[in-house]
Amino acid sequence: MVVYTATTTAPVNIATLKYWGKRDKTLNLPTNSSISVTLSQDDLRTLTSVATSESFPEDKLWLNGKEESLASERTQNCLKDLRTLREKLEKSDPSLPKIATWKLHIVSENNFPTAAGLASSAAGFAALVCAIAKLYQLPEDMSEISKIARKGSGSACRSVFGGYVAWEMGDETDGSDSKAVEVAPREHWPNMKAAILVVSADKKDTPSTSGMQTTVQTSDLFQWRIKEVVPKRFEEMKKSIIEKDFATFAELTMKDSNSFHATCLDSYPPIFYLNDTSKKVIKLIHAMNEFYGETVAAYTYDAGPNSVIYYLEENESKVFAFLYTLFNKVQGWESKYSTEQLSTFTSEFEKIKSSIGFPLDDQLYKGVSRVILTKVGGGPEDTDDCLVNAEGYPKSL
Amino acid sequence: MVVYTATTTAPVNIATLKYWGKRDKTLNLPTNSSISVTLSQDDLRTLTSVATSESFPEDKLWLNGKEESLASERTQNCLKDLRTLREKLEKSDPSLPKIATWKLHIVSENNFPTAAGLASSAAGFAALVCAIAKLYQLPEDMSEISKIARKGSGSACRSVFGGYVAWEMGDETDGSDSKAVEVAPREHWPNMKAAILVVSADKKDTPSTSGMQTTVQTSDLFQWRIKEVVPKRFEEMKKSIIEKDFATFAELTMKDSNSFHATCLDSYPPIFYLNDTSKKVIKLIHAMNEFYGETVAAYTYDAGPNSVIYYLEENESKVFAFLYTLFNKVQGWESKYSTEQLSTFTSEFEKIKSSIGFPLDDQLYKGVSRVILTKVGGGPEDTDDCLVNAEGYPKSL
Repeated sequence: MVVYTATTTAPVNIATLKYWGKRDKTLNLPTNSSISVTLSQDDLRTLTSVATSESFPEDKLWLNGKEESLASERTQNCLKDLRTLREKLEKSDPSLPKIATWKLHIVSENNFPTAAGLASSAAGFAALVCAIAKLYQLPEDMSEISKIARKGSGSACRSVFGGYVAWEMGDETDGSDSKAVEVAPREHWPNMKAAILVVSADKKDTPSTSGMQTTVQTSDLFQWRIKEVVPKRFEEMKKSIIEKDFATFAELTMKDSNSFHATCLDSYPPIFYLNDTSKKVIKLIHAMNEFYGETVAAYTYDAGPNSVIYYLEENESKVFAFLYTLFNKVQGWESKYSTEQLSTFTSEFEKIKSSIGFPLDDQLYKGVSRVILTKVGGGPEDTDDCLVNAEGYPKSL
Repeated sequence: MVVYTATTTAPVNIATLKYWGKRDKTLNLPTNSSISVTLSQDDLRTLTSVATSESFPEDKLWLNGKEESLASERTQNCLKDLRTLREKLEKSDPSLPKIATWKLHIVSENNFPTAAGLASSAAGFAALVCAIAKLYQLPEDMSEISKIARKGSGSACRSVFGGYVAWEMGDETDGSDSKAVEVAPREHWPNMKAAILVVSADKKDTPSTSGMQTTVQTSDLFQWRIKEVVPKRFEEMKKSIIEKDFATFAELTMKDSNSFHATCLDSYPPIFYLNDTSKKVIKLIHAMNEFYGETVAAYTYDAGPNSVIYYLEENESKVFAFLYTLFNKVQGWESKYSTEQLSTFTSEFEKIKSSIGFPLDDQLYKGVSRVILTKVGGGPEDTDDCLVNAEGYPKSL
């Protein structure tokens, strides 16, 4: 029995210019272009192995050790597109094995807890699509592959590239020009770091797909955002990345997060993702930037209360003077920094303490369950860490 | 020694179409028209007595028993305008006493605690201006008087009328057409009631004047709100009041509150007035309306976390089935309702309890410090309850 396998990883990305609103729900075509930073896979990644064999009776998926359904229309659309490309390839090169119609086994694991509330679907669909593309030895470039990942989960299309990524919304109704492109590779601006404050939430708020639909249909301000605000910001943000202009990048990032959440609030009924902890972190970042007299950090919030704080490595001690002081009781620091390094953040704070003219809430850490300290990272990677055995079943079972 | 005195009251008003943004800071000219409901003075009013005498050495103000400064430019502008009108009157009728240049004593008291965080400046400036206009026996109509109150505090112009009031923004740079007009008197739609949940806040957030300036200068979405969203909503809301169409009035009111807070969030740095308690009340009102299959209540929020909930008297038991159940531990019910009446709200809730398909947060009352139960009310009123003695000084001193 022949079993073909392939394995790849894919990263999480956090948008700095937000995707919110679909012009086509089935194809996941957005109402505006967006930009993201791909995060390091050392901290956040999905690892996916795929296997195919003539003997497999059906397509199967195991996610974090548990069998899950592949029945969703989105997943089916991805599989269909990948098989179509493989069939085309097999027709053009008759020497290739005819595997396009064989069933697939997909085994996937995240290296971060799902409970963190970090949208894992982007990394998940990017890894799934890239792994199968690799298995099928598809010759298409990553922007082409990104269109398939997009059908699984809109923001997944941005996870097929590392570094700084734009998702060009496109004009076509079939989505053929709605794809991810690289704005700049990780190496262009490698000192971009991210501190994620995982904010405790009562429960999952409005799911993003239904939230987007509500906003598109009911928010009066949303139309202005997509027509006037985002197109201008998209060009400005790309420029700020190319010029490595952190102050501009940070301001645009913060403004766009606020603009997105404003259209959520302007929806009817209104949608709230930011909670009181999120808002206190926002105020902290503004107060900190003002205190230093320069923009050392930028916040951004997806469809949830978690704070993602971007900053440059050279400003880490300035940023962590505040963040470590306020959140040192929360898990996540020790795995990244030695006790000596952590004590430098405390010393840094002690130095400036007396000149801080705004109140620091020493209870703020109670709203945060963990910190994830990471940085800009690369795109999907090959790995030897295969999750399937020789028979094409999960090794872990 | 001759001392002339006059006394009047003025009500609080709560906007249902929000005033947010000034096109002229000194004249308090708004960037958009607004609409409000005047609340009953039984519950919320300012009582102001004024006295004038040739013997007074200076203008003086006592507010809630404490002497306060009259030095603010806004107050000075009001006094100047009123004196100018009195001078004109004195010139046209030489038989009148020449009191325009005499100094004024102003004594003012609110019947509600300032700590409630209810913008008392509207009632305060309306009472001040109306009391002096009465003292001066000015022949101008209330819309003319509203322009003077506007210079004291923008929303004060709406407190010179009872019932349902529009503030027409006007076009002129001198503010001569920026005035309040009556949309409908209280008697037109007398069954409009309001439950105010006074939400506990850590501290006073961004003051509204500086908040407005930040929004006007930095929010991209704000321009769309004032150019496209509000003008249409202004006409629709007036129509809903004239037609006594509560469902439409309620939807427009809720949408406009959300739109205003969305532009605050879109400001840079962002401005937050709603807290987690405010948001839970918003969700409750939407869930309650959905539960009943009809719009029985509408929320609105000014520049703070307090919920103002409008509803019609005939729906009170439906609305209070929820509100009394959730907030009965909070003060404010007993002064309005007998124990028997309150128990009917509990019974009403018991009847529907099992069919409520959404969670009720039994800790929500902890975010609320008191409830104020009131209704639509009339405009400024004459009263015998004079606060100054025969010498023109506060009786309370």
